[in-house]
Amino acid sequence: MISRRSFLSLASASALAIPTKSWSRQSSRPAINAARLRNRLERLSTHGRAPGGTFADGVSRVAYSVADLTARAFMIDEIKSADIVPRIDAAGNIFARYGGQPNQPAILFGSHIDSVPSGGNFDGNLGTFSALEAIQAVQAAKIQTRHPLEMVLWAHEESTAFGIGTAASRVVAGDLRAGDMDRTWNGMTRADAIRRIAGNPEQIETAVRGKGAWHSYVELHIEQGGTLDRAKVPIGIVEGIVGIHRYDVVIEGFANHAGTTPMGERRDAMVAAAQLTLAVRDIAARRPGGQVGTVGRIEVAPNSPNVIPGRATLSVEFRDLAEQVLRELGDAVKARGAAIAKDTGTTITFTLASTSAGAPATSGVQDAIGRVAGALSLPTRRLPSGAGHDAQQMARLCPMGMIFVPSVGGVSHSPKELTTWDDCARGANVLLGTVLELDARDSV
Amino acid sequence: MISRRSFLSLASASALAIPTKSWSRQSSRPAINAARLRNRLERLSTHGRAPGGTFADGVSRVAYSVADLTARAFMIDEIKSADIVPRIDAAGNIFARYGGQPNQPAILFGSHIDSVPSGGNFDGNLGTFSALEAIQAVQAAKIQTRHPLEMVLWAHEESTAFGIGTAASRVVAGDLRAGDMDRTWNGMTRADAIRRIAGNPEQIETAVRGKGAWHSYVELHIEQGGTLDRAKVPIGIVEGIVGIHRYDVVIEGFANHAGTTPMGERRDAMVAAAQLTLAVRDIAARRPGGQVGTVGRIEVAPNSPNVIPGRATLSVEFRDLAEQVLRELGDAVKARGAAIAKDTGTTITFTLASTSAGAPATSGVQDAIGRVAGALSLPTRRLPSGAGHDAQQMARLCPMGMIFVPSVGGVSHSPKELTTWDDCARGANVLLGTVLELDARDSV
Repeated sequence: MISRRSFLSLASASALAIPTKSWSRQSSRPAINAARLRNRLERLSTHGRAPGGTFADGVSRVAYSVADLTARAFMIDEIKSADIVPRIDAAGNIFARYGGQPNQPAILFGSHIDSVPSGGNFDGNLGTFSALEAIQAVQAAKIQTRHPLEMVLWAHEESTAFGIGTAASRVVAGDLRAGDMDRTWNGMTRADAIRRIAGNPEQIETAVRGKGAWHSYVELHIEQGGTLDRAKVPIGIVEGIVGIHRYDVVIEGFANHAGTTPMGERRDAMVAAAQLTLAVRDIAARRPGGQVGTVGRIEVAPNSPNVIPGRATLSVEFRDLAEQVLRELGDAVKARGAAIAKDTGTTITFTLASTSAGAPATSGVQDAIGRVAGALSLPTRRLPSGAGHDAQQMARLCPMGMIFVPSVGGVSHSPKELTTWDDCARGANVLLGTVLELDARDSV
Repeated sequence: MISRRSFLSLASASALAIPTKSWSRQSSRPAINAARLRNRLERLSTHGRAPGGTFADGVSRVAYSVADLTARAFMIDEIKSADIVPRIDAAGNIFARYGGQPNQPAILFGSHIDSVPSGGNFDGNLGTFSALEAIQAVQAAKIQTRHPLEMVLWAHEESTAFGIGTAASRVVAGDLRAGDMDRTWNGMTRADAIRRIAGNPEQIETAVRGKGAWHSYVELHIEQGGTLDRAKVPIGIVEGIVGIHRYDVVIEGFANHAGTTPMGERRDAMVAAAQLTLAVRDIAARRPGGQVGTVGRIEVAPNSPNVIPGRATLSVEFRDLAEQVLRELGDAVKARGAAIAKDTGTTITFTLASTSAGAPATSGVQDAIGRVAGALSLPTRRLPSGAGHDAQQMARLCPMGMIFVPSVGGVSHSPKELTTWDDCARGANVLLGTVLELDARDSV
C-alpha cells in the first residue's frame, strides 16, 4: 500500500504555488465504479417494489417496513463484501469505517435508503451507495488517508414513519426527549421499530454523539427541485438547508345556509382562507430571494355544498435560509391575516406549530466541492436546499456540506423521480474527491 | 254549524265595492290558539332532544330515526284529538282533511317535522303544527268552507336522509324513478325506511298526484335568513323559491415538494382553488339582484403541509329565482376558471352536478297573503326563498305560496334557530287567513 501523499502529482504549473497538496491538484485520480453503483441501485430497487413492477415503478420502502429491513441487509452484505465490518448504533444507523490514523477524527459521508410511500429510486439511495463506492475507490487505489473515512446509512429520514422530527440522525445530534421511544405509529412504538432494525432503544442515549465527533460531514443527494436540470448544470453546491416556520391557522366564520344568507352578510371561512392562501403566495413570491410559502393542507367545516363554511383550518409554511427572513414572512402574513379577518368578519388565529432551524453549509466544504468539480471540469451552481436532510443534523456536530445532482423535471417523492446514470456517477466522483480534498486539511 | 258566507261581515265602507266576500274583508275573524301552538311545539321538541337537554338545545330528528317515528305518532295523536282521521300515503306523508264540499278540490297546507342533525325547533315544525291550528280554528269558529281544508306533514324534507332529491313531497309531485326505493342510507334501503313510517314502498306510485290535485298549496315557514329580522317585518311574502345550479369542480395541478419548488414554477391546485373561490364570491356579489354563490366544500390532495397541492375538488353553487341568471353566473365562473387555469398552470373542469328548477310563487296566493296581513295590520316584505321547500314540489301541481316569519339573527339548521312565540302566532294566523281567503276563489 502506498501513502496518499506519495500518490499526488501536480496538475499544472500554477498549482505549484499552492502549498496544500490536495485531491484537486492531482492528475491521476481514483474514481468510483459507475457500473457497480448503477447495478447496486438497481438491485436495491427490488426491495419495496410492487409485485410485477419494474425499476420505473419506484419503491415503497418506508422506514421499519419489511422492505426497509431487507434493503438494510443488502447494504450490510455489500459493506462486508468490501472487507469492512459495519456497526449498528443504538438508533439503528449503520456505520462503516475504513483506514485513517487512529488519533484522527473520521470524515463522515452517507445518506438514507428509506422512502416515502410510492417514492423513487434516487432520494437517499444515491448518496448512501455512493458513500460505499467512495470507500471502495480509495481501497482500490490503495490510498492511505490521514482521517478515517466513515460511511453512514441513516436508519430513518423520511417523516412518514413517526412523523416530523423523528429522523434517526436527530438522535445522533442529541435531539432526544423523554417519551420519544414510546411514541406509536402503525401499531408499534418507536422502541419496537428500532428493535426491528437491530437498534437498542434501552440504550438509545449511546447513539448520541458530541460536537466535534467527526472531522466533517458530506452528503450527496438528488436536488429534488428543477434548478440544476433546467440550467443543465451537473453539480450543485448546497449553500445551506433552509429553515422552516410552519403555522397552524384557524379561521372562525359563521356556518349558515348557503341559500338564505345574502352575499353581504356572510362570514365565510372559506373566502377568508382563499384570501390568506393568495396572501401567502404573494408574500413569498414578490420579495427578492429564494424563499417559498405554501398552503398545503386545508379542511373546512361543515364541508357541505349548501352550507357557508363556518370554520377553516389550514397550514402555512415558509422556508428560507435566514431565520430573520422567516420571521419577517410570518409577520407579513399575520398582518395580512388581520386585514382579511376584518374584511370577512372572521377571526384568524396563527399558531407557530413547528420550526426547523436552517443550517448553512460550511464555506470550507462548499469550496472543497467547488475545487473538485472544477478539477473534473464539471460546471457548478450554488443553491439552497429547500428540503430537509440528515446533513442538517450533522451541521450541529461538525463542518457540513452537500453535493446535489440534477432531478429530471424537478420531480421527487414520486416513482417518476429520475437522475441520469451519468449524473449519478458524476455526483459520486465529486463526493469521493471532496472526501479526499477534506482529508488534506486538519480543520475545515 | 253556520255557513261561512253568513259569517262574513264587512269591515269598512270601501269594502262594500268588492264583490268577493273574502276573509280579509271580515271584521270578526277566527284565530289560532297561540298557547296551544306553543305548547305543542315545546312538546314536539322532546322528540329528538339529547338526554338532559332543554328546548334551547334543539333537536336531532333526522327522517326515519326513532325520534322522527315518535314525533309522527305525537302529531297523529294531536290530529285525532281534533276528531279528524289522518291518512298516511305510500310515501309516508300524513294528510288530514276537514270539511268542504265533496266535489271541490282541497286547499293543502303544511310542512315537515324532520330535522338536520343538531337542528332547531322551528324549521318545518312551525308550519306543520300551524296547519293543524288552522283547521282547529275553523272547527272552533264553526266555519263551513267551500273547499276541503287539508293539512299535510311531509314525511322527509331535509336532505340528510338519502341525500339531495329524495324528499317525500317529490314523490307526490311525480319525481319517482326506477331504483329509487333500493337506494341505501344509514344501513337501510329507502323501501325499508318508508316501511318504518307506515308507508308502502311496494305501491309507492299510489302516492303520486296529478296536476290540479289540489286547489292550492300554502306553507308557513321560518325565513332561515336574516332579512325580516333585520327589517323588523313580521311577515314575509315569498316571491318564489330559488333554483340551484351546483357544479363539481376538479382542479389538476402538480403535487411537488414545498421546499424545493420555486414559487414561479408551481402548479398549485390550492392557489387556483383560492382564486376560483374569490371569483365565485365576486361574480355573485357584484351583480345587482339577490343571487348567491358559495364554495361550501373543498378537498385538496395530498393535503400535507410540506407538499404543494396537486389536486383540489370543490363545489360551486349558485342560487337565483331566474334560470337565465343561473346560466349566466355559471358561464361567468367558467370563463374566470379558464383564465385562472392559464394563470396557475392548472386544468379546471366544471361538471354541472345538479340543478333544481326555481319555483315562482303564484301571484294570486302572494296577493292573498298580502291582503290577510294587511287586514291584521302586519307589515310585510316580498322576498325570495333561498332555501328549498316542499312548496317547490307542490308548485308543479297547483297554485303555490309561502309565508315567512323572522328567524332571529338569520340562524337556521342550528339549535340556536329562534322565532319568537309572537311571530309564530302571527304567522299561523296569516296562514289561517290565507287559507280562508283562498277558499273564496274558484281559482287562484
